[in-house]
Amino acid sequence: MHFVDINCDMGESFGAYQLGRDEEILDFVTSANIACGFHAGDAATMRKTVTLALEKKVGIGAHPGLQDLAGFGRRNMQISAQEAYDLVIYQIGALYGFVKSEGGKLQHVKPHGALYNMAAKSAPLSEAIAEAIYKVDPELILFGLAGGELVKAGKKIGLRSANEVFADRTYQKNGSLTPRQEVDALIINNETAVSQVITMVKEGKVTSLQGADVLIQADTVCIHGDGEHALDFVKYISSALKDADITIAKINEFLD
Amino acid sequence: MHFVDINCDMGESFGAYQLGRDEEILDFVTSANIACGFHAGDAATMRKTVTLALEKKVGIGAHPGLQDLAGFGRRNMQISAQEAYDLVIYQIGALYGFVKSEGGKLQHVKPHGALYNMAAKSAPLSEAIAEAIYKVDPELILFGLAGGELVKAGKKIGLRSANEVFADRTYQKNGSLTPRQEVDALIINNETAVSQVITMVKEGKVTSLQGADVLIQADTVCIHGDGEHALDFVKYISSALKDADITIAKINEFLD
Amino acid sequence: MHFVDINCDMGESFGAYQLGRDEEILDFVTSANIACGFHAGDAATMRKTVTLALEKKVGIGAHPGLQDLAGFGRRNMQISAQEAYDLVIYQIGALYGFVKSEGGKLQHVKPHGALYNMAAKSAPLSEAIAEAIYKVDPELILFGLAGGELVKAGKKIGLRSANEVFADRTYQKNGSLTPRQEVDALIINNETAVSQVITMVKEGKVTSLQGADVLIQADTVCIHGDGEHALDFVKYISSALKDADITIAKINEFLD
Amino acid sequence: MHFVDINCDMGESFGAYQLGRDEEILDFVTSANIACGFHAGDAATMRKTVTLALEKKVGIGAHPGLQDLAGFGRRNMQISAQEAYDLVIYQIGALYGFVKSEGGKLQHVKPHGALYNMAAKSAPLSEAIAEAIYKVDPELILFGLAGGELVKAGKKIGLRSANEVFADRTYQKNGSLTPRQEVDALIINNETAVSQVITMVKEGKVTSLQGADVLIQADTVCIHGDGEHALDFVKYISSALKDADITIAKINEFLD
Repeated sequence: MHFVDINCDMGESFGAYQLGRDEEILDFVTSANIACGFHAGDAATMRKTVTLALEKKVGIGAHPGLQDLAGFGRRNMQISAQEAYDLVIYQIGALYGFVKSEGGKLQHVKPHGALYNMAAKSAPLSEAIAEAIYKVDPELILFGLAGGELVKAGKKIGLRSANEVFADRTYQKNGSLTPRQEVDALIINNETAVSQVITMVKEGKVTSLQGADVLIQADTVCIHGDGEHALDFVKYISSALKDADITIAKINEFLD
Repeated sequence: MHFVDINCDMGESFGAYQLGRDEEILDFVTSANIACGFHAGDAATMRKTVTLALEKKVGIGAHPGLQDLAGFGRRNMQISAQEAYDLVIYQIGALYGFVKSEGGKLQHVKPHGALYNMAAKSAPLSEAIAEAIYKVDPELILFGLAGGELVKAGKKIGLRSANEVFADRTYQKNGSLTPRQEVDALIINNETAVSQVITMVKEGKVTSLQGADVLIQADTVCIHGDGEHALDFVKYISSALKDADITIAKINEFLD
Repeated sequence: MHFVDINCDMGESFGAYQLGRDEEILDFVTSANIACGFHAGDAATMRKTVTLALEKKVGIGAHPGLQDLAGFGRRNMQISAQEAYDLVIYQIGALYGFVKSEGGKLQHVKPHGALYNMAAKSAPLSEAIAEAIYKVDPELILFGLAGGELVKAGKKIGLRSANEVFADRTYQKNGSLTPRQEVDALIINNETAVSQVITMVKEGKVTSLQGADVLIQADTVCIHGDGEHALDFVKYISSALKDADITIAKINEFLD
Repeated sequence: MHFVDINCDMGESFGAYQLGRDEEILDFVTSANIACGFHAGDAATMRKTVTLALEKKVGIGAHPGLQDLAGFGRRNMQISAQEAYDLVIYQIGALYGFVKSEGGKLQHVKPHGALYNMAAKSAPLSEAIAEAIYKVDPELILFGLAGGELVKAGKKIGLRSANEVFADRTYQKNGSLTPRQEVDALIINNETAVSQVITMVKEGKVTSLQGADVLIQADTVCIHGDGEHALDFVKYISSALKDADITIAKINEFLD
């Protein structure tokens, strides 16, 4: 049997600024990565998003990012491993406050944007992040780029670690994502995107842009929650995965 | 037998900015109120201050403030009860992250500055704050102005609530603090300050500026950690209270 | 002949967060109040909005607000007159940078949200704001609530000062706006709203909620740029004012 | 005759946080780089520092930095040239507000910390910064690392550009500064530091760590304003330069 978790970034509104269609998207995903106020999100949005996720029985994750609200946490910053450790603990804690007060349980942690990308390539940064998570709660699951340093660091310290894949991104022959600024980085066609995910989940491989197949483990698929077609796409992939006999389930229920 | 807790605001440094002499002060207080990043403090400072407090066996408290770093959380803001609720949960959670990761236990919550002062006079604000604390952890102790709305709201919802008194501030005949901008708001003389505390602890009363004695309960005394004489004063009051047969102990050890 | 200026708040996007339909609205207003990064807006948005306003020959104004991005500058804060003075100079200057670098000229200053409302009722705050504007550039026009303290302070120091009226708000018999939280604060019906403006411009009076007519001077009308019907309403009022033989012109061209 | 300007970073206090001994240091420098609120400084501090600099007839410069208050603008961030352009205009403008309102004139612009260092090595970033300055006011002088990209970009667009040297840092054979994290990056001995500056100013060269002499132009020397010995050092270097027949003057008075 094949299982996969579907995760989506959520709770990215801030003050008067609304972003994303969280409530509708939550009907089709199994794990929600909730922004914690550094790159997006605020206390009220965190509370509301936690409440919604609990109502819809979706796994709740902290989504810590760089302290760069103006850049939505997408600009690389040269932070030290210690700084990464500290900002991850702070943000997990902040979200934990709402999860606890609403009577829920925190399931996972997925670093956001530039922090995620920098960690995927840096063992020291990944080890600091994994240690931060482990020390707050060793039961938490760490989400990282499939095959990247974050997943390695998570396993090394003893965290259950989920390999994350992307439906709408192409892969390089070394298993990394094609950088966004390059041509062919994005998969526009929905059928191609979903077909790539099905192959990753069932066969453990992906065809790289260079043509060669690359081994990849797909524990959770990342869905984007903003943009006009986000809701349509999540409905489509959800349905297509089921048709392909893949069981969509919360990561907590099947990950070793 | 008479007991009193001595608390001090701590962890107020931010980035390159250093404030306070936390490490030395910690040798003479029993409870530390640690800033949580909204009005002061940052993730690194929180971690370091938690670590120091644990080493010195001082009770650890969250010190949530208004989101006003530029004003050090001292400027009143017209926030709703819901906003107060949310910002208190966020900040308790953030500090909890460091307390948990360092293997400690959170003892109390004391709102900071303008939030503390506004709550002291506002039942709705106090009830929102008390509910926030209770829902995160009903074992937490709430610190509020002696006789103020915060302590009332805490008791009402079922939190152990500590009446806080000030050594270096004068009191009005209704039991409130003389506003800072008024003449005679501050007690400059150390002996007078300590004598006022001793009377509050042992006799449950304070002589108001108007001359009349006012009933007051003193569970914890607030000491200021900045300024040149902070360290001298905390040494002095600590010694004077012992001489007056008052046991200085962590609030958690004696509060009903 | 009757003249009126139509102004709208603009440039309120921030980072990844988009707000308002500035480009379209700019075709129907004569003055743009551009957020300066404290309550909304950022450097990139300021540059883009200034460029758009110059292209469309709309008067450019600085729209300084309280340093409260999370609350969109709408929450009253207890700031000193000195603090108001400083934050107004900072924000006018920041916008001036973009106006100068794009080859334009700054026309006016309109405080935002809570700063505007607090100033309308406080002479000391208004005097500090007026002095700040005057000292940066005595040619700038100050926008304030019709009949309020800001306009008075502006005139006192020697600034041309524009009385601002609102199309969609009802008035009290003392000439103040009905507070938003009260029933009947808003005028929902477009015809009623526009009719109120026409009477204010042509007859210098408004019928208060209490029934009595109140004298009011209408130099500029505030239009809201967000919400679904913003664009429709600005088209409608623009057309209706012209039909009533009112000349819509940039404030700079007709204010004494 | 030999001339040199002495500059120092100033106005780095923020809210309740005090940094530097600006008032005393200002007696010994000819140019002040005033923080503009992104990496340090706030509106009140900017006003006070501008006032002090005017009183002491010191040249006033904007000191724009990355939007990273928590990191004091010292952490590299991957910003685009457009983002650099925007943040420089915003910050120059903000400081200009205070300079104008206090009746002064802005003399120069020196990017801060990571922005300065990144620009020194990046032509696109430097060209964006130089264009920003030029478009706000082509009379402004640009300060950049001696021989670096910033100075080149400034000259290219038509700005007077000052080559900045450091007294307390060693140089590499390619004329760059020895990175701070390396051994021998700092010159601890005051006599050695000043002797290096005298050679740079009078002979146009510096002895690199590798032993070879490197050509370098020294228009302005950077002095650090924080630290215990800052004031002593600035007094010492000021006196030693005069003894070596070097005229210490405001950059504006002698730079071509």
